[in-house]
Amino acid sequence: MPAYSDRMADQSGFRIEHDTMGEVRVPVDALWRAQTQRAVENFPVSGSGLERAQIRALGLLKSACATVNGRLGLLEKTKVDAIVSAAGRIAEGEVDDHFPVDVFQTGSGTSSNMNANEVIASMCAAEGVTVHPNDDVNMSQSSNDTFPTATHVAATELALTELVPALGGLAGSFERKSVEWREVVKSGRTHLMDAVPVTLGQEFGGYARQIRAGAERVCATLPRVGELPIGGTAAGTGLNAPDGFGSAVVEELRSLTGLEELRLAEDPFEAQSARDGLVELSGALRTIAVSLTKIANDVRWMGSGPMTGLSEIHLPDLQPGSSIMPGKVNPVLCETISQVAAQVVGNDAAVAWAGATGAFELNTAIPVMARNVLESARILTTSTTLFAERCIDGIEPDVERMRRYAESSPSIVTPLNSAIGYEEAARVAKHALAEGLTIREAVIALGFVPDPLSEDELDRRLDVLGMTGLDRER
Amino acid sequence: MPAYSDRMADQSGFRIEHDTMGEVRVPVDALWRAQTQRAVENFPVSGSGLERAQIRALGLLKSACATVNGRLGLLEKTKVDAIVSAAGRIAEGEVDDHFPVDVFQTGSGTSSNMNANEVIASMCAAEGVTVHPNDDVNMSQSSNDTFPTATHVAATELALTELVPALGGLAGSFERKSVEWREVVKSGRTHLMDAVPVTLGQEFGGYARQIRAGAERVCATLPRVGELPIGGTAAGTGLNAPDGFGSAVVEELRSLTGLEELRLAEDPFEAQSARDGLVELSGALRTIAVSLTKIANDVRWMGSGPMTGLSEIHLPDLQPGSSIMPGKVNPVLCETISQVAAQVVGNDAAVAWAGATGAFELNTAIPVMARNVLESARILTTSTTLFAERCIDGIEPDVERMRRYAESSPSIVTPLNSAIGYEEAARVAKHALAEGLTIREAVIALGFVPDPLSEDELDRRLDVLGMTGLDRER
Amino acid sequence: MPAYSDRMADQSGFRIEHDTMGEVRVPVDALWRAQTQRAVENFPVSGSGLERAQIRALGLLKSACATVNGRLGLLEKTKVDAIVSAAGRIAEGEVDDHFPVDVFQTGSGTSSNMNANEVIASMCAAEGVTVHPNDDVNMSQSSNDTFPTATHVAATELALTELVPALGGLAGSFERKSVEWREVVKSGRTHLMDAVPVTLGQEFGGYARQIRAGAERVCATLPRVGELPIGGTAAGTGLNAPDGFGSAVVEELRSLTGLEELRLAEDPFEAQSARDGLVELSGALRTIAVSLTKIANDVRWMGSGPMTGLSEIHLPDLQPGSSIMPGKVNPVLCETISQVAAQVVGNDAAVAWAGATGAFELNTAIPVMARNVLESARILTTSTTLFAERCIDGIEPDVERMRRYAESSPSIVTPLNSAIGYEEAARVAKHALAEGLTIREAVIALGFVPDPLSEDELDRRLDVLGMTGLDRER
Amino acid sequence: MPAYSDRMADQSGFRIEHDTMGEVRVPVDALWRAQTQRAVENFPVSGSGLERAQIRALGLLKSACATVNGRLGLLEKTKVDAIVSAAGRIAEGEVDDHFPVDVFQTGSGTSSNMNANEVIASMCAAEGVTVHPNDDVNMSQSSNDTFPTATHVAATELALTELVPALGGLAGSFERKSVEWREVVKSGRTHLMDAVPVTLGQEFGGYARQIRAGAERVCATLPRVGELPIGGTAAGTGLNAPDGFGSAVVEELRSLTGLEELRLAEDPFEAQSARDGLVELSGALRTIAVSLTKIANDVRWMGSGPMTGLSEIHLPDLQPGSSIMPGKVNPVLCETISQVAAQVVGNDAAVAWAGATGAFELNTAIPVMARNVLESARILTTSTTLFAERCIDGIEPDVERMRRYAESSPSIVTPLNSAIGYEEAARVAKHALAEGLTIREAVIALGFVPDPLSEDELDRRLDVLGMTGLDRER
Repeated sequence: MPAYSDRMADQSGFRIEHDTMGEVRVPVDALWRAQTQRAVENFPVSGSGLERAQIRALGLLKSACATVNGRLGLLEKTKVDAIVSAAGRIAEGEVDDHFPVDVFQTGSGTSSNMNANEVIASMCAAEGVTVHPNDDVNMSQSSNDTFPTATHVAATELALTELVPALGGLAGSFERKSVEWREVVKSGRTHLMDAVPVTLGQEFGGYARQIRAGAERVCATLPRVGELPIGGTAAGTGLNAPDGFGSAVVEELRSLTGLEELRLAEDPFEAQSARDGLVELSGALRTIAVSLTKIANDVRWMGSGPMTGLSEIHLPDLQPGSSIMPGKVNPVLCETISQVAAQVVGNDAAVAWAGATGAFELNTAIPVMARNVLESARILTTSTTLFAERCIDGIEPDVERMRRYAESSPSIVTPLNSAIGYEEAARVAKHALAEGLTIREAVIALGFVPDPLSEDELDRRLDVLGMTGLDRER
Repeated sequence: MPAYSDRMADQSGFRIEHDTMGEVRVPVDALWRAQTQRAVENFPVSGSGLERAQIRALGLLKSACATVNGRLGLLEKTKVDAIVSAAGRIAEGEVDDHFPVDVFQTGSGTSSNMNANEVIASMCAAEGVTVHPNDDVNMSQSSNDTFPTATHVAATELALTELVPALGGLAGSFERKSVEWREVVKSGRTHLMDAVPVTLGQEFGGYARQIRAGAERVCATLPRVGELPIGGTAAGTGLNAPDGFGSAVVEELRSLTGLEELRLAEDPFEAQSARDGLVELSGALRTIAVSLTKIANDVRWMGSGPMTGLSEIHLPDLQPGSSIMPGKVNPVLCETISQVAAQVVGNDAAVAWAGATGAFELNTAIPVMARNVLESARILTTSTTLFAERCIDGIEPDVERMRRYAESSPSIVTPLNSAIGYEEAARVAKHALAEGLTIREAVIALGFVPDPLSEDELDRRLDVLGMTGLDRER
Repeated sequence: MPAYSDRMADQSGFRIEHDTMGEVRVPVDALWRAQTQRAVENFPVSGSGLERAQIRALGLLKSACATVNGRLGLLEKTKVDAIVSAAGRIAEGEVDDHFPVDVFQTGSGTSSNMNANEVIASMCAAEGVTVHPNDDVNMSQSSNDTFPTATHVAATELALTELVPALGGLAGSFERKSVEWREVVKSGRTHLMDAVPVTLGQEFGGYARQIRAGAERVCATLPRVGELPIGGTAAGTGLNAPDGFGSAVVEELRSLTGLEELRLAEDPFEAQSARDGLVELSGALRTIAVSLTKIANDVRWMGSGPMTGLSEIHLPDLQPGSSIMPGKVNPVLCETISQVAAQVVGNDAAVAWAGATGAFELNTAIPVMARNVLESARILTTSTTLFAERCIDGIEPDVERMRRYAESSPSIVTPLNSAIGYEEAARVAKHALAEGLTIREAVIALGFVPDPLSEDELDRRLDVLGMTGLDRER
Repeated sequence: MPAYSDRMADQSGFRIEHDTMGEVRVPVDALWRAQTQRAVENFPVSGSGLERAQIRALGLLKSACATVNGRLGLLEKTKVDAIVSAAGRIAEGEVDDHFPVDVFQTGSGTSSNMNANEVIASMCAAEGVTVHPNDDVNMSQSSNDTFPTATHVAATELALTELVPALGGLAGSFERKSVEWREVVKSGRTHLMDAVPVTLGQEFGGYARQIRAGAERVCATLPRVGELPIGGTAAGTGLNAPDGFGSAVVEELRSLTGLEELRLAEDPFEAQSARDGLVELSGALRTIAVSLTKIANDVRWMGSGPMTGLSEIHLPDLQPGSSIMPGKVNPVLCETISQVAAQVVGNDAAVAWAGATGAFELNTAIPVMARNVLESARILTTSTTLFAERCIDGIEPDVERMRRYAESSPSIVTPLNSAIGYEEAARVAKHALAEGLTIREAVIALGFVPDPLSEDELDRRLDVLGMTGLDRER
């Protein structure tokens, strides 16, 4: 068994640790120590800990800080190497089980920062190197700059390396369909009512743009989300940190993550007392949720039926839909997307609320902000990938039905306005509806052919694909 | 011109008023005085003042307080009568133009309380009775108990005398339709996909219940919304108010409004430092918005088409729907409802946010809470009334189409499960869909008639109206 | 090894199951079967499954349904007994690991309903009783009535047996302090500015009332939250369920849980197509979050300091507050409460959003609604208990400092209004502030003693405890 | 009286207008006509119409469209000139009273688009030029592209020409104070507890950065908010609009407004079916609200007192604060800001909700989205300007008190860590607190002077201004 601690284990599966407030019993095989244990006992609230992305970022940050402390001559090489190694393993997820502190904890995340410090100290001890959680691992740092720094690193990394590519994947699926169905004409619907024709490709092109714009929205927030408060220590002043520490750690983090969006915060006081960047990012994620809601609704309505709905497209069958109605299949991934969107909207409300709770030099709701922003980014990533691969990519259109719809919409009378006038056109539309005729039949029945419209001209104007303006110059 | 004030008007259309901070220029024909004027100048934020219901409640409250002060021998009868008369006219809306203070003002509503005090003083002066805005009109009161008291009176009155009846009206419309269409069978839809049959009457009965439950929700909050802090004066302790003042004013308010839900707050400190009752009420209004959203969506989807949608019902034509597409008519009142719901959801978020901003003896976001709760109640009232009268009452169902839908749904195979088994039933459903057959045809085609099902038994089981269980005992 | 399934395991740790869509590979020791496995593969979204309370409720419901099916002669006793036994173990939490389906799944919760059906079938098989997941375990049911029924049972049970007692506990803590500190006088604060005196007991009495009102709010929603759609099966019509099934199951659930609030839904169509009851309940939970936010803010502000804040009270020291600032201790449980409140506000927004997504006969965002409502109830329970026991109960007031504050507030001049007039009183207050005098000193300095005020009368009026109106009749 | 219409007025103060649905009575002096009047009667919901900025944008857009139609030879010069003139007057606000349609109307804003068309037609008629509301004024347009285009123009203009400068003004106020108070040392506060020293200038510098970042956030959304759907007409296809119409109108709008951020939408289908840009912008406004909440809270807490609060600064006296407590003055503009923030948060929730309600080719909640986004931008503009000019600019610090605070904070022991160790430093801090000593006194009392610290070194380390790192390199 590795020596996780300098303390001796007692007989009962616990060992005794101490901190400035006294002694604490810690499970003998836990990598954490006294302060973590106090937090475990103080905060048995939700059973949920930090998001993986945040533990990873804490690992990366501890590594970067040790490297810089070493480079500045404050920390000896043996310690630096041991910390960097341990922190790297934390980043990789090897010891996630040793981060037991609940997300609903002290608002600064101090307990989780100390958790990281203590786990690293124990991992170093197991390798024979004695480092102190505070004096060495936390050197030149405070929870007040490290925890938000780790949160913003995690948010930036998740956004750029997970979410944006996932959105790109979904947009790509829409774009392929947009090309494939370029000329699949269908009835437009505005206010849910029959409108002038569009193509299925045009609709899916619109969805693609919504999703690409979503990625742009996320990226547009990163100049501020990527601002890191590291170097400000307890209150933004940088007390007890060496000159240049913040800049150097940021540089190291850019190198470790490859994220050029990371930068030293413009103003360290803003960067520690407010978490506005997370609120802004959350707003962008929420906008994506809004886009996805609209798209998922459209897709499932198009697939509604098979006999009593629109039945314009067929979605891939993923699982039996009903335990009581044989043969029923449901648009389950649309519903997943829709529910993820609801969660993201909710998470966003939590982030904004928490973002407003700061006072003076510190926001004290960082863990809950981190949880919600990071979960939103994560479930948007997974769900949009599933949506693309298992739903959109497998859609099959009912081309014939859609053309029938397009041709039956009374609104295809619209291009006749300039020939017979808006009011006469309205009379045609109403006559067609009342008598169950097509618009073409109604135009002829009401005597507009051959004058003012020849039959050829009528057919030209009533060409539903032509109405979709596929090659229009805007 | 009535003498609105003891001060002389200057030449310029303004007169000079003063308060403890000095002199102020007030428009010569304004009923308000110095403190109101300061507020007008301090808060040119939104251009919106108090809701009508709140001005009314302020008038009622000032009247009740004067009456009680008189009864307790603190205020002479001439003054009482003059204040009661002026306050009554305020309640009736005669001088709303003299309430110019912006809703985004001091968080206690002090400026609006003083506005009421000053207008009453001027109205009394015009009748030849000199009363002091603070010493007489505001006697035994503080903004900190009057403004929230007026807000809760307004909320209770609006809820009970406007909103609940409007909801009753809408529910009644749904119920009449539910009876009328009791046996109008149609296809159920779950996950938007074809399901087993229901009747249109059953659906509208469900809507009626949603709306009736909405009224119950509102009423369920009134035991707390109706709690009034009056009598607590500045901080809840009742300093400078006589014994029994609060109870007597509440009794007077019950008498003036007929609202038995009004009662003295259980705890005056809770009642002044928190506005949780408004948050709770707002949550109930928000639930109604959620109900309405679902209903309005169903109704407009049922009415979608006429050729490319579901076309199960026809909504009344209210106005031309498009400037470009002749003959188009849209479900505009469903959209109004949907937008009102969005506003109520937004207002609710504002109320909750504001509700959390109190500190120690006072919430300081009362005006914004009042605005949002009262507007929500008001626009829910107007819009549900319109929805009932101009939309629901005029709906015409397409009975034939709905029956066709019901009979075409593959899910009507469900009652055969017990005769041929779930798996064979699934085979029937898939065969019907694949071959374009009705379920009846598919059952016969696959050889289940006459054994195990006689043709009579098949027809009995496939009776779509029978499936709707109209007279089932639950 | 128990025979979880009739299928044979292959060599690879998986066995083959099948459903109407074909074959599926399932981990050999999994209690779940084909449909669950499809869902596991279709929805790798969040990594979070159902809340414990909901799995429990599903178990209780499956037990109740089997009992009723048996009583009605539809299901033989051996099967009933086996299902009841297995479902009971599910309710107790013995097999939570066998509920692997993600919460972001099909919006009806069908996958989790089938998960329960399949696990029960496997548990019965392990006991030698063959039951079919659909035909037996799901008999007379549909996901569309069972999953929402389980959700409302879970919500009602959590609310009544966990949350309401926890709130009672916290209110009790406040009430004990309210009595203990009945006469601990301090300065009131309105708008954060010095106001007239109150007692610490009065403030804590107000907090107690806020929390008790919170419990009332929750209970006020239960007449609707407790409405259960069971018996409606697929679309509310009760197709394939025997007469009286719903009522009997509800009766059985009342018996199993002891919850008299459970009742058959007034209208089965409302009860399946809308989840408004959850929205309403969530609004009540959100109101509690608002209350807690205010209280936690007050408490931590009172405890702020020790040298540069208000320092009116001392909170229990729970853990070292800073890794860099020696001796610092922070109000961590206030921050936990504050963050829980933010989460509840966020969860509530998710619930409302999801609540509006239903169409026709089904809301398809039930799992996400359940997750958020149940998590909110759960973390409010745990955090308020911690707050009571580890924070409120251990608070120690600085009685002397608070009395000094009370006596130094310029607002204690208020009771002199009736003797020297409001304007002279204002002059006294300003003189005291400008010269650094107490109000008493300023009154004397400005010559109001002995006339109009004798020194005795002055002292009587300036008695700060007297101003708090402890025994006033309201 | 100008001839507002070709129709004759009847005796009763009304004239008869007609549209495709029949005749309508319109007030004789109204500039609007039949369709507007129908909308007035259909939507008596809230009493609120469009925001001024949106009426202005509708005017600008109608002008631009007429110009382009003229340039393309579709509309004769006389008509173009008349429309441009009338539309210009609408933009300037001359006829706002003739826009009576409620904001809760048809979700496309068709009624307001027709309102503009009809008012322009009447204004042209009054000048002797007959133009048709649809055929001429609405030429090449549909409500579905004009109303959202006007909304995005209004949002962009309000954001860039009103809000961003107002934020600049507020940031400037903070920056001036930051410079002025560069060396005004005070105690930092984290978790509300005494922390290491900062300067008041550093805090106000942080506020400045928050506000500047808010302006950046708004600007970061404009690449998408500025995307205009004009040219797409009814469904995005551009049916009935000439080639190049959209681009030319956008160019004209850029010229009319000077806003280079306006551009033709990347994808016309996205741009008509979704309003995501408004959701994104609203999220940015919401982030500003969060920033302002934090700042306003800090400022009013700093100004709390005068005797029982922090009293670090004095805010300008704007109005008497209490009708009952003489001499009380409250931080009313902080409360205004705080309430505006609550409203913006609420408006934002409405925008997101409404943003998700679109289906197929159209979002049908545009008016409510416009109302909320534009109101938010407007009240943020007015309130931040007031906050800067009437609150921040007039703040006076209590320099002495703040230095006392800084020196009394136990956390100033922090710089001694490296000399006497963290644990001994903690002992010093606790000793100082327990005995009522300064940290300096406690250090000496515990014997750390002269060894390991000389008195000079001690004083150097305990220099509170020195601890603030004013010239640190980060």
